[in-house]
Amino acid sequence: MTGKPCIICVAITGSVATKSANPAVPITVAEQVESTHEAFEAGASICHAHVRNDDETPSSDPEKFARLQEGLQKHCPGMIIQFSTGGRSGAGRERGGMLPLRPDMASLTVGSNNFPTRVYENPPDLVDWLASEMRAHEVIPEIEAFDLSHIHHAALMHRDGRLATRPYIQFVMGVKNAMPVDRETFDFYRATVERLLPGAEWCGAAIGASQIVMNEWCVAEGGHART
Amino acid sequence: MTGKPCIICVAITGSVATKSANPAVPITVAEQVESTHEAFEAGASICHAHVRNDDETPSSDPEKFARLQEGLQKHCPGMIIQFSTGGRSGAGRERGGMLPLRPDMASLTVGSNNFPTRVYENPPDLVDWLASEMRAHEVIPEIEAFDLSHIHHAALMHRDGRLATRPYIQFVMGVKNAMPVDRETFDFYRATVERLLPGAEWCGAAIGASQIVMNEWCVAEGGHART
Ligand SMILES: [Zn+2]
Ligand SMILES: [Zn+2]
Ligand SMILES: [Zn+2]
Ligand SMILES: [Zn+2]
Repeated sequence: MTGKPCIICVAITGSVATKSANPAVPITVAEQVESTHEAFEAGASICHAHVRNDDETPSSDPEKFARLQEGLQKHCPGMIIQFSTGGRSGAGRERGGMLPLRPDMASLTVGSNNFPTRVYENPPDLVDWLASEMRAHEVIPEIEAFDLSHIHHAALMHRDGRLATRPYIQFVMGVKNAMPVDRETFDFYRATVERLLPGAEWCGAAIGASQIVMNEWCVAEGGHART
Repeated sequence: MTGKPCIICVAITGSVATKSANPAVPITVAEQVESTHEAFEAGASICHAHVRNDDETPSSDPEKFARLQEGLQKHCPGMIIQFSTGGRSGAGRERGGMLPLRPDMASLTVGSNNFPTRVYENPPDLVDWLASEMRAHEVIPEIEAFDLSHIHHAALMHRDGRLATRPYIQFVMGVKNAMPVDRETFDFYRATVERLLPGAEWCGAAIGASQIVMNEWCVAEGGHART
């Protein structure tokens, strides 16, 4: 436990779970705002958001993101809004179509890796374009580090100016066929961030039941927590 | 320096360099056999091989691999032959079309990552199919670890039987947009292999001038060397 305040990030909705799997998953923008408001009252200070189509499939529609942003600004004043540019919600540049809305933050994956049944494709030219949009619209990137090289690559992009601000780093563990939940790796990730991006904030995200373990590691070591 | 014998692996040809870049690059099977023979006389004990079409573009033609194997067995008796199943030489299952030739070893990449201008795609079902072909034909896999999770995934595949033998691990560093040449990472890679695949042999490959640095690290720490 360090003396530093711990930032709690609530990931509402995500891009996968549906109401048939969990009736509590907020799908419409109104449900998302209501659910985030509860988390905000409970102390969460970052909202990591995806949007969905009416049939619950993932969307990257900027108009939906705009309505969500408006609702959150009204109901959760001061909450940090982070939009996902992840690959489950759209293909190619669609993934960054909401960045002109100037959310406080946006997620950015700077490398490629395997997912449970496919390749999570983040080709170099798309990564560079998303980063340039974030610079243009003054959006702070949260790097989704699915593997160690993603931390190295984020540090390189920060050194050469492709990332205007020091990024926030999220360690993603427990995705099948990517990095497992592993304490030694978690510690080496932290040491690598400290070495290559000194002072950068970081947090951890894990899948399902492992998220609790990961939160304990994060809070104990001075990182932030994701629910 | 450890007391262990150091295995020298010669990577003839590769999949990128052409005669216009370096007239010494062996392209035809006859040139490959001649070049490997020189390295064999000089002490190399593994030959990592790609094959090429007559126009120097990469190929995965099993017939060419068969002629190379025949030439090497004749001119370099006892040399360990390792065929590349890398993605520059073919798409999908074409990449493993030479495995029924039963080379001693074959390269296997168990995850995806970025390359200089594109995604190096190794989807989970293709990885599992290549591994099953290696099991069926008793080919020892050399894992091309382009990132840390690839070591974890190779260890998992060994634990659950998808890799019949303990794999040989090659750390690949210095490819643009993938893992840079980094000493701390090299040391953590070694520690991770020792923890997850105790006793596994490993070696390092780096791009261009960095290969010499990498060879020094490998030889000093008990790994093998790639030229
Ligand atoms: Zn977070
Ligand atoms: Zn997300
Ligand atoms: Zn080797
Ligand atoms: Zn090769």
